[in-house]
Amino acid sequence: MNDDASWWRRACAQPQNEAQTQAQARQGQLTKPPGSLGRLEEVAIRLAGLQGTPTPAVDRVWISVFAADHGVAAEGVSAFPQAVTGEMLRNFAGGGAAIAVLARALGAHLDVVDLGTVNDPGPIQGVRRWLIAPCSANFCERAAMTPAQLQAALAAGADSVRRAREHGAQLFVGGEMGIANTTAAAALACALLGRAPAELAGAGTGLDAHGIAHKVAVIERALALHASAAGPGDAQAVAAERLRRLGGFEIAALTGAYLAAAQAGLAVLVDGFIASVAALAARALNPGCEPWLLYAHRSQERGHAAVLDALQAHPLLDLGMRLGEASGAAVAVPLLRLSCALHGGMATFVQAGVSTGHAERA
Amino acid sequence: MNDDASWWRRACAQPQNEAQTQAQARQGQLTKPPGSLGRLEEVAIRLAGLQGTPTPAVDRVWISVFAADHGVAAEGVSAFPQAVTGEMLRNFAGGGAAIAVLARALGAHLDVVDLGTVNDPGPIQGVRRWLIAPCSANFCERAAMTPAQLQAALAAGADSVRRAREHGAQLFVGGEMGIANTTAAAALACALLGRAPAELAGAGTGLDAHGIAHKVAVIERALALHASAAGPGDAQAVAAERLRRLGGFEIAALTGAYLAAAQAGLAVLVDGFIASVAALAARALNPGCEPWLLYAHRSQERGHAAVLDALQAHPLLDLGMRLGEASGAAVAVPLLRLSCALHGGMATFVQAGVSTGHAERA
Repeated sequence: MNDDASWWRRACAQPQNEAQTQAQARQGQLTKPPGSLGRLEEVAIRLAGLQGTPTPAVDRVWISVFAADHGVAAEGVSAFPQAVTGEMLRNFAGGGAAIAVLARALGAHLDVVDLGTVNDPGPIQGVRRWLIAPCSANFCERAAMTPAQLQAALAAGADSVRRAREHGAQLFVGGEMGIANTTAAAALACALLGRAPAELAGAGTGLDAHGIAHKVAVIERALALHASAAGPGDAQAVAAERLRRLGGFEIAALTGAYLAAAQAGLAVLVDGFIASVAALAARALNPGCEPWLLYAHRSQERGHAAVLDALQAHPLLDLGMRLGEASGAAVAVPLLRLSCALHGGMATFVQAGVSTGHAERA
Repeated sequence: MNDDASWWRRACAQPQNEAQTQAQARQGQLTKPPGSLGRLEEVAIRLAGLQGTPTPAVDRVWISVFAADHGVAAEGVSAFPQAVTGEMLRNFAGGGAAIAVLARALGAHLDVVDLGTVNDPGPIQGVRRWLIAPCSANFCERAAMTPAQLQAALAAGADSVRRAREHGAQLFVGGEMGIANTTAAAALACALLGRAPAELAGAGTGLDAHGIAHKVAVIERALALHASAAGPGDAQAVAAERLRRLGGFEIAALTGAYLAAAQAGLAVLVDGFIASVAALAARALNPGCEPWLLYAHRSQERGHAAVLDALQAHPLLDLGMRLGEASGAAVAVPLLRLSCALHGGMATFVQAGVSTGHAERA
């Protein structure tokens, strides 16, 4: 189905307005002052449209974590050594990583996808190998990915969505792991938004001010190298070329996953900074995906606020998290579940025999 | 144990610093960049101190909802008729109210306490009757409670905490229901904080601008009436007198519950505006309770921000909720649980064989 190299251009599904309207009407009948559940009402109504039912649910959650190494790590832009990417694959599968703990606590399915690491851990039970290369290229010297590598990475995301749908997932959550990937995400966001690196580059896993200044300089070099090479074609083709030159395997996999989910009509919960940049790329590649993307949390990573503004996104949580791995999205899953539980489980005024309002003094 | 009329003055428990220090050290060893779980790290560390264990848990959650009617409702300060308080008791017990749905979804124990309603629904399965009076007095005319009523309301809260402890609860959550109780809470907060009613009175269940202006005028009358009657004694006695004159049965029950929990060393998760005013009263009655109070969410009710500032509280959630019933606190319970799951379940760098940081470019 995704053999076609521009599958990601295909039309996205449309949310079902009738289910959404029914859900909105139901919210007005539940035993509470109108609007008093705030964002939880909004989430239930939106999920109703996305799931095509007036009583949505997020019992079955699928979490894909895509891991890959980045050539730009050679520029010394991370507080952690590159070996950590491969090491963390074992920790995801072994249950000790944050997202593994969260997936277990949520009863969510955890899909770990190895797209290629410099420090290849070999086959691991619980890790699917979709090896593209040990590492993307250092985008300070050349494009991060070849055209074939970009296609493979986008397809990895689409493949995870296919599995999620076979699993009966009601929500798709994507996460990432890859030393130096806040550098790639910041570079890509700069290119997509026309912002300066100093505005979007942050501490990542823990750079100090000197480290951040170096990271900014690295991104500036990359943007200069790729500025005149936007490539031919329409806006979508230009965006894809930017993703190919400045992204990374796991960022492109997230982009592909978001687009495939939107085409299939599967709701997505977007994680933090890197995932949001993938969402930015997805919207640039195919704007029709927008209704399918819900935003989980506001990361502490410096560039996230600007990316969220560009996406006109209002995440549910603001907990100062900055781990990635889909951890922020996972933490927001209970809010979606409780939103659905309230929406479906509360009594109406008529059912409960409770008087309605409007006794207000004239 | 609480026969003594000033039981609430007794010393509160002390958090255990050693467990907290151990938890802090553990956070630094888990496979994530230091601090990258943000507020979730802070919650786990704080709960460690409160529960006296380096690996805290909030599996067993006790939710008490106190319902009572308010004499000040006669002034026309609510968008809903007073009959709703009694009607909602049946909805709490019947499972159709928001907090009932949330308690079920969380596997929490729901304790519904009827402190007295004008529209007495009679005995209801699942509602404990701790009847003080059908209604507090209209505090525009006299003190809301007699001294004996204040004692009975404080004791109701302490009794729920005793039951929670017998149940083995690891977290106490208090909620409230009572038509006109945002008026009582705003009046009490004005008296405790020396603020003007226009700063703290809000829409409650749905007043328009005219209704809010009327509510402000009602609170101004009440404050004028009670201004010169702070009563004899120390600061604690003055605060108790303010609670008696301007509070309500369910607000005083929450205050009593918070104090009893702090004395017993049981962590509390405070709900929204009204619960936060009860926390303000609790801290005025016995400042030693402060370490035991965690704050769940920022309500959309106008006065909550000022009350949270006075409490130096930084709630976990900001979802535009304004329902009460403990609903905002209940929605935050999964965050506490996931915080504990991450803290206790994640692997350390050594356990997982993952390299640590500091590879940062010099």
